[in-house]
Amino acid sequence: MCVMRMKENPLLVCADVKPSRPDFTVVGVFNCGGVRTEEGVTLVCRVAEMCSDRGDGVIRIPHVETGGTIGAMEFNRSDPRYDFTDPRAIVERDGRRVAALSSMSSLRRAFAPDGVHFVCDDTPLFPLDPRSEEWGAEDPRITRLEDGQYAMTYSSVSRNGVGVSLALSDDLVTWNRQGMILPPANKDTVIFPKKIDGTWWMLHRPILDGLGASDIWIASSSDLVHWGGHQHLAGCRTGQPWEMRKIGAGAHPMEVDAGWLVLYHGVDEKEHYRVGALLLDKQDPRSVLARTPQPIFQPEEPYERNGFFSNTVFPCAAWIEGDEVVTYYGGADSCVCGARLSLSDIMDSLVYGRRAL
Amino acid sequence: MCVMRMKENPLLVCADVKPSRPDFTVVGVFNCGGVRTEEGVTLVCRVAEMCSDRGDGVIRIPHVETGGTIGAMEFNRSDPRYDFTDPRAIVERDGRRVAALSSMSSLRRAFAPDGVHFVCDDTPLFPLDPRSEEWGAEDPRITRLEDGQYAMTYSSVSRNGVGVSLALSDDLVTWNRQGMILPPANKDTVIFPKKIDGTWWMLHRPILDGLGASDIWIASSSDLVHWGGHQHLAGCRTGQPWEMRKIGAGAHPMEVDAGWLVLYHGVDEKEHYRVGALLLDKQDPRSVLARTPQPIFQPEEPYERNGFFSNTVFPCAAWIEGDEVVTYYGGADSCVCGARLSLSDIMDSLVYGRRAL
Repeated sequence: MCVMRMKENPLLVCADVKPSRPDFTVVGVFNCGGVRTEEGVTLVCRVAEMCSDRGDGVIRIPHVETGGTIGAMEFNRSDPRYDFTDPRAIVERDGRRVAALSSMSSLRRAFAPDGVHFVCDDTPLFPLDPRSEEWGAEDPRITRLEDGQYAMTYSSVSRNGVGVSLALSDDLVTWNRQGMILPPANKDTVIFPKKIDGTWWMLHRPILDGLGASDIWIASSSDLVHWGGHQHLAGCRTGQPWEMRKIGAGAHPMEVDAGWLVLYHGVDEKEHYRVGALLLDKQDPRSVLARTPQPIFQPEEPYERNGFFSNTVFPCAAWIEGDEVVTYYGGADSCVCGARLSLSDIMDSLVYGRRAL
Repeated sequence: MCVMRMKENPLLVCADVKPSRPDFTVVGVFNCGGVRTEEGVTLVCRVAEMCSDRGDGVIRIPHVETGGTIGAMEFNRSDPRYDFTDPRAIVERDGRRVAALSSMSSLRRAFAPDGVHFVCDDTPLFPLDPRSEEWGAEDPRITRLEDGQYAMTYSSVSRNGVGVSLALSDDLVTWNRQGMILPPANKDTVIFPKKIDGTWWMLHRPILDGLGASDIWIASSSDLVHWGGHQHLAGCRTGQPWEMRKIGAGAHPMEVDAGWLVLYHGVDEKEHYRVGALLLDKQDPRSVLARTPQPIFQPEEPYERNGFFSNTVFPCAAWIEGDEVVTYYGGADSCVCGARLSLSDIMDSLVYGRRAL
């Protein structure tokens, strides 16, 4: 499997991103949606921020207050009521409820004419919604639709859970928000670039625990805003340790001769994130034709192995250029990276047939 | 609070329901949707069945196999890998995943010209879908829509989780299935009887653990099948022990002068189910106007206190007759019961204003 990481990796790190306020610190720029246009590559990055450390043992996390102003939630690191061991969340020891995320993310546009040397906007793409995004917006995916519009899905996070919201744009600059298209707990939603059989389709990933697993589902829509026809599409495979715990779509499905190619992430028992591929039927994307038994891309470089959430490659943007799949991905929940994967290698790695799925 | 239980309660018990196969045993008939028509009251009941006990210490649970035939999952009661203490599910001790429900439910029509003496059909309303309902269909709610159609939501249960499906009918006998309208994990979905501001609305209840709670959400649709605009509507109240753990809509919202009245269930730390009421704005049901601080209806009678899942009253059907709310409800996950609640008492119990919500 030929994976060519961009030699300029990581392409964006915290130091490249201006905090959205002078008293904030950027703690991650990662998990970006993206598209190539004639002018270059536009990414929309997840930028995670905390209030700057005052050295007083207090963790201060920005959040959106009712009315839209940004306030800070405070947690004393020595407070025995909270468990600070998960780098992504502060959890109540009593009851294991999430008291806060460890940072607040918002979405930031970055642009590079050459697809390598990105400059990140100094301000978020849009202000967050105090009701549904009190704790942030995360992990955008962008699809250029057949009608020329751009559709962006992203996670809206609040004390009420993580749901999936949609925004539409004609120019990748002005975004029209369309509300929450999937209620909590859901993530990792990607929209197909064109209608199939007269309808829009998307993949999504319910977050399940106990009854059901965090698998990939598919749904359909006539207007991109209202969704139904939900069906389970592909599950974790207990026989494949690298993806036995969770799987979720990475970038939007890419049309190839054999069907729809989907990069997806698989999560193992140690919460390491690798990448596999699915092939869906071109006429009926509810049918899985083939799947890669082994990861096609996995954390190897220092910027993928060590970071805010280590041992993670997390692609949210991908498209085909010639015989290559170009992907932009988050490295260790810390930085934005790029890679080129051989399309024919991916196609050769797919195993067809019911037993392979 | 005046609650008049029907003196014939329970109205339907296991012995009144013919097993759907000779080798099955009915272990519950409960949680029924329902409507009143000129002819009488039609209920659609959840009927839970197990394979008959052969006295060999093996629990056999029906399930729908690929292709639609009914098979049996077998669990030895002495198998140390499983925890059998939750009467509703068999749980793997290692990892706490649900290995099976403790029974399989399907939907069964029952009819009573007088609304009291019900006769239950001998066969399920429709065969279950092997993909999404391998483990059963549960907790139906029926709304008569302003166009005369009947819309039924119910839980579709499989190894992939519990989602919400929709079926439509013109006559309460033939149902046209519309697929899954909400992916797992979700339940307790009720559709408003008419369009408000040109759109259909429904309440639903994501099942959340960790980040967010099992609260009531609202969504909108133009066609009843595809849903968007999801918003958090009303949450558990930690200050009210009777509903601190979960809440969920009971029957469909009822139009009263002051707004939309919703009976909902509240669950306490001991998993006892009681009933409260919400009042939503008539023009914008996303706005909660008032709520009852205390339950308006709770388990008191033996058939509500003792059963398959004890201390539970669970209304899924309700409508207004004069100054009464007539409700049909499940008692202790075992039987179908009926009650009449004073509408003016409910309205007087509502407390208005932000602090009451």
